[in-house]
Order: sequence, then structure tokens, then C-alpha cells
Amino acid sequence: MREVAVLGIGITKWGELWEKSLRDIYVETALLALDDAGVDHIDSMYVGSMSSGIFVGQEHIASLLADYLGQAPVPSTRVETACASGGLALRLGFIEVASGMNDVVLVGGVEKMTDVSGNEATYALGTAADQEYEGYHGITFPGLYALIARAHMEKYGTTREQLAMVAVKNHCNGSKNPLAQFPFEITVDSVLNSVMVADPLRILDCSPITDGAAALVICPVEMVRKMNKPVIKIIGTGQATDTIALSSRKDLTWLEATYQAAKEAYAMAQNKPEDMDLIEVHDCFTIAEICVLEALGIVERGKGGEAAEQGLTSLEGKIPVNTSGGLKAKGHPVGATGTAQVVEIVKQLRGEAGERQINNPRIGMAQNMGGSGGSSVVHIFERE
Amino acid sequence: MREVAVLGIGITKWGELWEKSLRDIYVETALLALDDAGVDHIDSMYVGSMSSGIFVGQEHIASLLADYLGQAPVPSTRVETACASGGLALRLGFIEVASGMNDVVLVGGVEKMTDVSGNEATYALGTAADQEYEGYHGITFPGLYALIARAHMEKYGTTREQLAMVAVKNHCNGSKNPLAQFPFEITVDSVLNSVMVADPLRILDCSPITDGAAALVICPVEMVRKMNKPVIKIIGTGQATDTIALSSRKDLTWLEATYQAAKEAYAMAQNKPEDMDLIEVHDCFTIAEICVLEALGIVERGKGGEAAEQGLTSLEGKIPVNTSGGLKAKGHPVGATGTAQVVEIVKQLRGEAGERQINNPRIGMAQNMGGSGGSSVVHIFERE
Repeated sequence: MREVAVLGIGITKWGELWEKSLRDIYVETALLALDDAGVDHIDSMYVGSMSSGIFVGQEHIASLLADYLGQAPVPSTRVETACASGGLALRLGFIEVASGMNDVVLVGGVEKMTDVSGNEATYALGTAADQEYEGYHGITFPGLYALIARAHMEKYGTTREQLAMVAVKNHCNGSKNPLAQFPFEITVDSVLNSVMVADPLRILDCSPITDGAAALVICPVEMVRKMNKPVIKIIGTGQATDTIALSSRKDLTWLEATYQAAKEAYAMAQNKPEDMDLIEVHDCFTIAEICVLEALGIVERGKGGEAAEQGLTSLEGKIPVNTSGGLKAKGHPVGATGTAQVVEIVKQLRGEAGERQINNPRIGMAQNMGGSGGSSVVHIFERE
Repeated sequence: MREVAVLGIGITKWGELWEKSLRDIYVETALLALDDAGVDHIDSMYVGSMSSGIFVGQEHIASLLADYLGQAPVPSTRVETACASGGLALRLGFIEVASGMNDVVLVGGVEKMTDVSGNEATYALGTAADQEYEGYHGITFPGLYALIARAHMEKYGTTREQLAMVAVKNHCNGSKNPLAQFPFEITVDSVLNSVMVADPLRILDCSPITDGAAALVICPVEMVRKMNKPVIKIIGTGQATDTIALSSRKDLTWLEATYQAAKEAYAMAQNKPEDMDLIEVHDCFTIAEICVLEALGIVERGKGGEAAEQGLTSLEGKIPVNTSGGLKAKGHPVGATGTAQVVEIVKQLRGEAGERQINNPRIGMAQNMGGSGGSSVVHIFERE
């Protein structure tokens, strides 16, 4: 297989984008990525979207977006694995370039979530859980992650305050990211006094509903070298599944799909958790970041709660996590999140992260997750 | 890239499967494919589904189906490009095996379409068109294809009877396929006197609403040889897009995405239309088969209407088309159709097609299409 690199990145301001439709949001972002890459031609494209069908009544967005980007007749593929759709789009693009089938592939993710009324967004997100065995009984995602949080607190003594500190850290990072949906700091007190959603999770433990997109142009490493651009290699990719229903797991606190995906990515990259200079993780809820850090092997099992508290994962910490603000502060347009994580890693590895730039990172990882952990996609990147 | 072959196939009786849920239908079919392949392990899986979100309120089926098939933690990916989702699943599986990333990949498609009420199925299918510029104005798929049919009749003199003959031929083939949803013959008269749906298309010009799945196991050619099984190689793959909206096309009668996808597949396979011994095409409406045959280069532009009339595409014709019964008689569970087309080609190439077996075919093609032709996937197969 050929070596693959990220040549261009694109992302725009996220939030409630009522003036823009799904196609506008995507095309704007994709054009930025093509411009950043310095190419005017692509060989194919992949787009991740969790539920454009329910959110905006539009399936077949692979054709729609290729058309509106002015790129038809190139092959265009929509992939979906709930909130891990954006990371999955990168993996499939990676395989296509690595195989030699095509050279320049546009990889993106998009979701338009705010054009709904009542509880439609909660319903749409709920379709990532097992509808017959979980959704039917009325549980929604805050409820599922609340069960995980309660189990983690019981088993490992994780505290309510530790959960809050994850949100505080990510908002601190997000306050330095002008494209974030909520670019401001919050305090532990404000988290602890925010509205209860599903005990013990409060509203400031939850990532928001967001409209947004992100895009990448990937190609063979050789091509980047010839263009004299910074070489950000994709050195590892991993993807795995777990039981979709939380009730089928042996241990509610353990994210097996993330563990397996990371294992595959570490093996391919020939490195280990200690080699990472920064990580973007899927903090759809504060407890998720805690469990993910354990599954990735960044901290020991049960020690995830201490990471934010002790400053390990802060911008100045040993291993900065979610320098972008994470899903919590940056926003969580579900199908775009996995691609946006990679945009942040590339910005940091290139030294283009502005106020939140960390000191000379060389290796970064992005971990993206679907449902209550039923699927996960992990990528590792290295600056040459 | 490595050479890839189809090792196993699985398909079950299609129809209104009220006793089975989406997961049941898929798992039953996938187990048949694994059994036929003679493997008890897969490295990864791809599943095509157009709109499990709208049809049964379930996204994230990649995780759901890996779980219920007992295959977690293998990587599992759902792909969607409307009614071409099943063909697309094969293309991505092909790229993965060809790349060397994985060896044994399960490729499938599934749709559960009858668990809806009122006009929900029509709404769900309509999400394959441009919702903002087509759906908003009230047009549905029979209406879009009726526009294509009318244009073809005006431009090329195609007759109402020629459209009917496509349905008659496909039902004749379907009458020999016990797994078809409608395994019986019809006459030109019955088509011409059936209920009008969208002038000039009548109900017997339209493929039905169907529950069903199909699955394939693919792997490197070398592995099939070692197992002493028939070697059915995938020698060509092509994928392309066109404008999603019909109104943006220069010529309503021309399927550019199918033309482009076929061009890519022919080039990879190093063969041409005349080399095909049989073809499965996407006859979602009778007019679709006519236009597809022209785009594939099987007949000259404008001559598609004569193909069925003159017997060119019948079971005994020069180039049998839709020996399975096609979408018309076999049924059209939208996400499964593209995979099922390949199941039929493999059965024919192996000589296992029973009553509808054609004489010693060596090369076959499957053409799958999304929306009103906004995307298309084409594959070519050869028996060694």
C-alpha cells in the first residue's frame, strides 16, 4: 500500500447556521480544503453524514454534493456509522489512495441539525442506538451516557467534579478557537449548577446540536513532497465495532470498539500511547472523554477521571486532549465531527493553531465514535 | 492492486416480510453467503442501505448488523448512494481487498420498506431526489421517470408497447426465479391496462416496494484457487455521478453517470460491450432499462426501445438482460438491489441459475443506479 498524507484542510464557523442549507455548508468547507490543498481537480470523494435523511429529508447526498461542488462525474460516496461517519470517510479515502486506485480524494463530513422542531433532533440522534431494544423503551443518548457515568463513578470512584473538569478544560481550549460554536470559558460551578439532563449528567456535560462541515484533501505522500508542502502523513488507521446496545456489554465503563480500533492504528503506525503529542477524542459527553482516554491506553483503566483534574490533558499538560475545544465547545454536527478532529490535528502539526497552538507536536491522534461506543474509528498522523 | 473474486453468495425470498425485522433479513442472508463461501471468519464488512433511518428509524446499522451477525469487533461500514448503495458496498469491499488491507470481506445490502404507513415509502424514496429543487415541488420518482420516458418517446419514437415489453421480459425471467417477489408472467395487455401512475408509466412499469437483502463474500483470487472453488473474478469496477436533479441535465434521455461508470469498468476490465454474455441492469422503471442499455453501449443511442421488442435481451437473446427478473419482478429493496444483481451474475457464471440458466456464460456485468441517475456503479465479472 502507498503512503498517504493530508494535503489540504477546510472548516468554517460552526453553530446554528439558519441562513445556510446542508449543501451550502458542505460546499463552502470543501472549497476551502481544495484551496488549501492547491488543487482544482479531485479523483473521488467521500462524505460522512449520520442522518441527513431524518434531519433534512435528503438522502443521496453523495450525488447532491458532488453536483453542487461542480465535481460530477467523479465517484462520490456517502458513509455512515452514526457519529463516527466523518472519521470513517477518512478511512475509506485512505484505503482508496493507499490502494493506488486514485490519487486525490476529497474527504468530508457534514450535518445540518437545527432545521427541526420539537424533539426531532433527539429522535434522529436516538437512531444511533438499537431502536428495537433501547429506543423502544424510551432511552435517549444522555440517558445511555448517564448509565456509563454512574457505573464509572461506582466502580472507580470518579467524582461529579471530575466530569465537570472535562467540560471546563474543553471550553478553555474552545475559547481560543474562533470557529467554535461556544468559544468561551465555563467554571466547575456553572457545570454543577446547570440544568439536569440525565442524572448525573447536566446540560454542560453534553455536546450541543450543531450545523457544520469539515473537509480534507488526501493524496500520496510523494505528491505532497513534489508540491513542497508540509507532509502530514496518515501513519495509522483503525476501525472496530462493539455491541450496539449498552445492555449487551460486559462492562459499561469499557469502550471495546475504541480499544480495538486504537490497537489496529497503533500497530500500523508502529507506535504506542506514550508517543502521542496530542489527541482529539469524541467527548460527546464529559464521561465519554474519560472512558476514551482509558480505552486508548493514555491513562490506566479507572484513572480517566483524574486526567483533567490533574491537568494531564490541558493545553499545557503532558498530553493535550481536544485542543480544538472538543465536541463540547467546538460543537458536534454529528457526521462532520470525525473529519473536524483531523482538521485540528493537522493545524497543530503544521503549527497553524493560533492561540491554542501547542509546542512543536510531531504525532497526533483522532478518535471518533458512534452511538454509545458501538463503533469507533481512530487515525494517527505524523509530521515529517 | 490484488485480483479479487467472489467466494460466496447469499440471497433469500424477497417480498413483504412482515415476520422479519431488518436485522433478521440481513443476518439470514449473510449467513447463507458465509456458508456458501465456506468461511467462518471475516476481516470486515460493508452494508448498503438507502434509508434505514426513515424506513425503520434505525441508523448505525453497520454496528447493529456486525453485532447481530456475531462478528463484532470487525470493522463494519454502511454506505449509501440511494438505490445504488448495494453496488457501492461491493466497490468499497473490492478496493479494500485489492489494496491488501484485508482478505475476507462480507459485502451486503438490505432494506426493510414495508413497515410504513400511508405515503411514507414514497416520501422515503423521494429523498433520493433533490429535496429542495425537486421534492419541494411535489414530484416523486414515478413522475421523474415519466418525464424521461416521455422525452425518449418524443426524441426517438420509442413506443408505449416497447416499454411494456421490458416488463413482460423481466417477469418472464422472474417466473423462473423462485426467490422473486412476483414470480409470474404478465402480458403486454396487462401492462397497458394496469393503473396509471405517472403518464405514460403504469403500475406494471414500476418496480415494487420490497423487503430483502443480499450478501457476497469477496477475497483475493489466490485464496479462491487454494480452496478449489469456482473463480469468479471482479475484473472491472466503475462509479460516477451526474446532476442529482433531472432539470439540470442537457438531455433527459441520457444517463451520464452510468455511461461514465461503465467506461471506467470497461477500461479496467479491458473489454467492451460486445464481450458481455449477460447483464443485470437497474430497471426501477421500464424506461430505465431502455436508457441504461444505451448508456452501457449495448445498443445505439435511441435504440433501447427495440431491444426487448426484437428479443435481443431475452433469455435466449444475444445478450440476456435481467435474467433474475430484474427489479421489476424480483423486487427492489433499494439498498439490497445492487448486491443482488451480483448474486445473479455469479449464479449464472457458476451455472447454478436453474430454470433460467443461460448457455455457458463467461463474462457478466451488473449496473446499479441511484435516484434518477444521479449516481451509478458498474461491475464486470469473469469466470476463470
